[in-house]
Amino acid sequence: MSSYLQVDAWNIIEYGFSPDRLREMESIFSIGNGKMGQRANFEESYSGDSLRGSYIAGIYYPDKTRVGWWKNGYPEYFAKVLNATNWIGIDIHIGDDVLDLARSKVLDFKRVLNMRKGTLEREFKAETPSGHVVMVKVIRFISFNEKEIGAIRYSITSLNYSGPVTFIPYLDLDIQNEDANYDEKFWDEITREVRPGEAYLIGQTKKTHFFLATGMCFEIEKGDIGISPDCEIIDREKYVGNSCTLQLKPGEQVNLYKYAANLSSFDCVEEKLMQETRSRLLKASQRGFQKLLSDHESAWGKKWDESDVTIDGDPSAQQGIRFNIFHLLQTYTGEDERLNIGPKGFTGEKYGGSTYWDTEAFAFPFYLCTTDVRVARNLLLYRYKHLQKAIENAEKLGFSDGAALYPMVTMNGEECHNEWEITFEEIHRNGAIAYAIFNYIRHTGDEDYMMDYGLEVLIALSRFWKQRVQFSEDKKKYVILGVTGPNEYENNVNNNWYTNFMASWTLKYTLENLEHSADRDERKLGRLMKKLNFNFHEETSAWKHILDHMYFPAIPGTRIFLQQDGYLDKEQVLAADLDPEQRPLNQNWSWDRILRSPFIKQADVLQGIYFFDHQFDTETIRENFDYYEPRTVHESSLSACIHAILAAKLGDQKRAYDLYLRTARLDLDDYNKEVAEGLHITSMAGTWLAIVEGFGGMRIENGTLYFKPMIPEQWNAYSFNIRYRGNLMTVHIDRSEIKFLNRSDQDLSIKVFNKPYLLKAHSGLDIKT
Amino acid sequence: MSSYLQVDAWNIIEYGFSPDRLREMESIFSIGNGKMGQRANFEESYSGDSLRGSYIAGIYYPDKTRVGWWKNGYPEYFAKVLNATNWIGIDIHIGDDVLDLARSKVLDFKRVLNMRKGTLEREFKAETPSGHVVMVKVIRFISFNEKEIGAIRYSITSLNYSGPVTFIPYLDLDIQNEDANYDEKFWDEITREVRPGEAYLIGQTKKTHFFLATGMCFEIEKGDIGISPDCEIIDREKYVGNSCTLQLKPGEQVNLYKYAANLSSFDCVEEKLMQETRSRLLKASQRGFQKLLSDHESAWGKKWDESDVTIDGDPSAQQGIRFNIFHLLQTYTGEDERLNIGPKGFTGEKYGGSTYWDTEAFAFPFYLCTTDVRVARNLLLYRYKHLQKAIENAEKLGFSDGAALYPMVTMNGEECHNEWEITFEEIHRNGAIAYAIFNYIRHTGDEDYMMDYGLEVLIALSRFWKQRVQFSEDKKKYVILGVTGPNEYENNVNNNWYTNFMASWTLKYTLENLEHSADRDERKLGRLMKKLNFNFHEETSAWKHILDHMYFPAIPGTRIFLQQDGYLDKEQVLAADLDPEQRPLNQNWSWDRILRSPFIKQADVLQGIYFFDHQFDTETIRENFDYYEPRTVHESSLSACIHAILAAKLGDQKRAYDLYLRTARLDLDDYNKEVAEGLHITSMAGTWLAIVEGFGGMRIENGTLYFKPMIPEQWNAYSFNIRYRGNLMTVHIDRSEIKFLNRSDQDLSIKVFNKPYLLKAHSGLDIKT
Repeated sequence: MSSYLQVDAWNIIEYGFSPDRLREMESIFSIGNGKMGQRANFEESYSGDSLRGSYIAGIYYPDKTRVGWWKNGYPEYFAKVLNATNWIGIDIHIGDDVLDLARSKVLDFKRVLNMRKGTLEREFKAETPSGHVVMVKVIRFISFNEKEIGAIRYSITSLNYSGPVTFIPYLDLDIQNEDANYDEKFWDEITREVRPGEAYLIGQTKKTHFFLATGMCFEIEKGDIGISPDCEIIDREKYVGNSCTLQLKPGEQVNLYKYAANLSSFDCVEEKLMQETRSRLLKASQRGFQKLLSDHESAWGKKWDESDVTIDGDPSAQQGIRFNIFHLLQTYTGEDERLNIGPKGFTGEKYGGSTYWDTEAFAFPFYLCTTDVRVARNLLLYRYKHLQKAIENAEKLGFSDGAALYPMVTMNGEECHNEWEITFEEIHRNGAIAYAIFNYIRHTGDEDYMMDYGLEVLIALSRFWKQRVQFSEDKKKYVILGVTGPNEYENNVNNNWYTNFMASWTLKYTLENLEHSADRDERKLGRLMKKLNFNFHEETSAWKHILDHMYFPAIPGTRIFLQQDGYLDKEQVLAADLDPEQRPLNQNWSWDRILRSPFIKQADVLQGIYFFDHQFDTETIRENFDYYEPRTVHESSLSACIHAILAAKLGDQKRAYDLYLRTARLDLDDYNKEVAEGLHITSMAGTWLAIVEGFGGMRIENGTLYFKPMIPEQWNAYSFNIRYRGNLMTVHIDRSEIKFLNRSDQDLSIKVFNKPYLLKAHSGLDIKT
Repeated sequence: MSSYLQVDAWNIIEYGFSPDRLREMESIFSIGNGKMGQRANFEESYSGDSLRGSYIAGIYYPDKTRVGWWKNGYPEYFAKVLNATNWIGIDIHIGDDVLDLARSKVLDFKRVLNMRKGTLEREFKAETPSGHVVMVKVIRFISFNEKEIGAIRYSITSLNYSGPVTFIPYLDLDIQNEDANYDEKFWDEITREVRPGEAYLIGQTKKTHFFLATGMCFEIEKGDIGISPDCEIIDREKYVGNSCTLQLKPGEQVNLYKYAANLSSFDCVEEKLMQETRSRLLKASQRGFQKLLSDHESAWGKKWDESDVTIDGDPSAQQGIRFNIFHLLQTYTGEDERLNIGPKGFTGEKYGGSTYWDTEAFAFPFYLCTTDVRVARNLLLYRYKHLQKAIENAEKLGFSDGAALYPMVTMNGEECHNEWEITFEEIHRNGAIAYAIFNYIRHTGDEDYMMDYGLEVLIALSRFWKQRVQFSEDKKKYVILGVTGPNEYENNVNNNWYTNFMASWTLKYTLENLEHSADRDERKLGRLMKKLNFNFHEETSAWKHILDHMYFPAIPGTRIFLQQDGYLDKEQVLAADLDPEQRPLNQNWSWDRILRSPFIKQADVLQGIYFFDHQFDTETIRENFDYYEPRTVHESSLSACIHAILAAKLGDQKRAYDLYLRTARLDLDDYNKEVAEGLHITSMAGTWLAIVEGFGGMRIENGTLYFKPMIPEQWNAYSFNIRYRGNLMTVHIDRSEIKFLNRSDQDLSIKVFNKPYLLKAHSGLDIKT
């Protein structure tokens, strides 16, 4: 797909109508506002291949799983993000022809995702089978201010046609998830209403019983004058609309403004849904399209002001990072701690569920550094509120006494994935959840969080590790058997270094915080200990014993940590030795072959080193990087960014840049040929990390923010924004200097290349390099 | 279920009607003849819970798989043994009441599986909702002489009822597999015919396009006199029958004789199916029920004469082993090398497919020792004919140059199972296929088989192992990574001792036979080498290098072979340490917990030692047995028999007997609460092995058959029959002597407790012990 889309700093631009790429473009041009999202489907009928998708945050369905052979402990369901009411639909009839680009001659076609403004625009000329030629211009957005509102202006101009034109704005709940396991439909209709100019549908999901009310209203203008054509009501099961016919002549333009509102059980009690939806819808429509749009654009303006990254001298990279930030901001806004960041956001259905370890390990730092502290805190609270479910999940697997195993995939805290090698064995996810607490507190300084919430989670995690380790009489060490690390090209291994390391670190961090908390507020701690039935001496002694006797596999005579026991038995070949035709391996090799090969999907030893790089000397990092990077095939979208950051840390700017490029435009250029299924939202955060922590060299050490920037030779300059402990600053790096602008009211001490500086409130600081 | 059924030497007897046990009894009382089989469903309507099952050998459907997450290399389908036309159905109306035991008062109920005669008999008295009381006696069998014929005599006597009785003998193809993944039906109707007294249905399976023609005809007698009541034809989609009404008075008896014929694509070309089915059906009905039955009984008499095992002094054990032999003989008769032995035979649908490694590793010796040599040879030819598919299967997994990986589960040579840890990694199955060739030739002396077929298979298997091993630079040995051994409570392990051993033995055996074949017929060998494009020097050198440098894990300082790398890291607890409430583990523990526990489903090290016990000294066997048996939970039905044989070999009669008991009545007493799904056919052969190779101590060494018998103290005597190199002998063991009866025309040298004896043709030999 490379170079199909136009390069532009603020816009994604498609020229020409390519039905073969339609699903890809539907993903890329998706819009959303954290509460709902919409693939870039056409408003009018389209009979060609397409994945229609309207998604509402938090609304899921526990689809009956497909399992070849049931294993004890499997969850009963696989949660699916639900494709919901189609609220964008506007069918157009031109005389006897239905406007359908699959059946028209498309004379011109342009689509623009305006990322600065958060709008999707489309224009085309089409000749229908009967030879009627019209020009259509559409603009649509999902309001960033009023999260339940979406709006569309659909303009049609006749170029050669005289006669009747019918507009059918409608709502449709007769929707099926494409990834439904048994071709079932997941929505029941509860009620519907329709009158001229307005229509409402309330649906309820089967099993989960979520309600979703959708309302629409519309206005029609001819030229600039509002008109009231004859409208017939359409009213059938799961479908309501109006059919409005008017006469059109060549050169005449008609505009239809469609407003829609989506309110769910998350927003409103069932009894008031209809009334509330209508009230919000009508209020929005009264404000009018232009006002809604300008407010929406302002909201985006504020977002960009705090989150933008600029890259000067490389328009393609500039577009790539803005695209990533745009989608991250559309996916999660952090107002509601019941929501999380789905790996595909609102852009597709694959992967189901909403929450993976991706959130804590990759997406969390982006929100932590670029949005209000409340956003990151809500991501933590999400897990805190799922703690009881995580304890129940661990109990299902035979653990007890308050040990928690967070789910691999979840919507509501329950596990809902069921490959045993992932669900039961990718227990490293517990490590990422502890790490996010650590990361949050060091960034925000919000020590209260630890006392009020964090410690309770840490204790439950430590209790899990305590039970999950195993003392090997053979090694005289604690081992962790039967796990899958982040490198999913190994399964059911023993002593995955990363998992052992994260387990060990979690115990240590919990012990430290227990001590620290005792100093801070002994009574509060006492209450927690009592609540958790915590046997201080016994439990902490056991943890310390494990800490002192944990086994970490390594290559003798080197500083290299060994990915897992037995890795050295593998054929010692490198990714460079692979026939390029064989890549990606996951599309060309059988699973067993991948598993027994030495090739690494994402290097988990490097992931662990990345998390705690201040604990390792440079030589150790270098040896491990030099060992693992050549064995890594980066077939996870979460892989290359971490390698890029480490390469930058090691001063290897060229390699860092090459690695950065592997994710920078992953979706825009569809490297992996899977954009049709949706975008890689969580990996987008990895690209941001590669810029800020990689090139920018941003770290926190002992409570001080520091930077060791470098600049890729392909760039003239780059800048990014960072929030840190109540401060907001812009960092601008070019070939000769590093400029800081402290945009907040407080002074801040930072370090640049190990030298301390004071960054005064509302002041700049320029450092020559 | 223990003690529910009556103990009897030749019969399985159920007294009383137990709807809760109906599915179990339907499995246990199944009948079959190798070509077709039938669960013990009632002929008349039954509205309660039941699994109706009529199965035709070789007829399968490639059901779309249920897979949580697709892996490259997975087969597209999971083959299902198809539930086929219900040919036993006879609905009965008594006045306005339908005779239905779920809606009647069942006053008396008895069911007998007569194993000597191969018949299923049932009698009961029932009071219908209107108070009509009838007595019913049914006998049915599936002919062992005419493999397409089944026959039923259904007798009904009125005890208090006067009025009309309607008999509706029918055929029904509107059948669904209970285990269909997507609730689809797999049969299309091709044609149907029905006239008074006769009806025919031809169905075709979807996708596989197998044809199945089923015909039925019937006669009715009142008292002993044939009558011709009014019969109406019933003729609808997938259903044909007659509805015949006659008047009945108290004390009067009516007999309906229903004959059915099933002919499939395996028997006849499509064009002739109808004609041939009708011809065979009418011929059978003309011979009459009694004659068909007596011929059938004679055929069973012959079978028992050659295959029976007697146990004197333990009626329960006697019944158990006869039950097992009965089902083995019903499942596979060896006339058709396109068929094989399904793990559930014709008694249920679970597991799909027909062929597992169970055939070669467990069932093969039973047929080899108790049936004509052609039977075992056909089992080998089945695999020979699938060789090309096995090569293709290996190619799908990345192997080349004629390497073969036989499927884990198959109907037609293609792999049709899809758990990666089994399909892709349980490659040890290749070892069992080589072992069966070895076993066949040493038993039969049929050296030509090696030259004509065996060697070609062995070379393909050796080529596989050559490519599948991996030289570990770390160990300086060849290793085999990423396998699952027969102990499926481990997955994806490195250096499973059993797999490494079978690979190594296969290479050795192939090399020996290449050498031997060169001596026997160099030209024939030359042709084979050419056909296989065999580079003699290069390939055999590589194999020898592997043989000389194969890695076998072991416990240092002991004679114990280690199940796999890393096993010693596991918690060293024993099955005896388990809380009995936790067993069976597979019903109580999550899968990951089982995987990382030390508990063994079936001990594969012991399986390997069992196969080649002459290669190991007694101390080695004892140390390994003493190590693994206490760690084995025997949650495979194929486990305990092997341990019993080894315990017997080690002279531990008590333990051997205890282990024997764990499988002896596995299904009859439903130890595992899963008989409702069907019987464990292949494990039944294990029980036979435990008697003959365990207590009987039968082995072959250097071409000589030898015995080291012992007798469990619970028994007075036992006997079994053995075919060996054209001989048939009966071996009878009691507390004071071992009696041999050579029933063939040739003398045979044997050994008993290491002493040689000559067993004269048609003579006995008594050895005092």
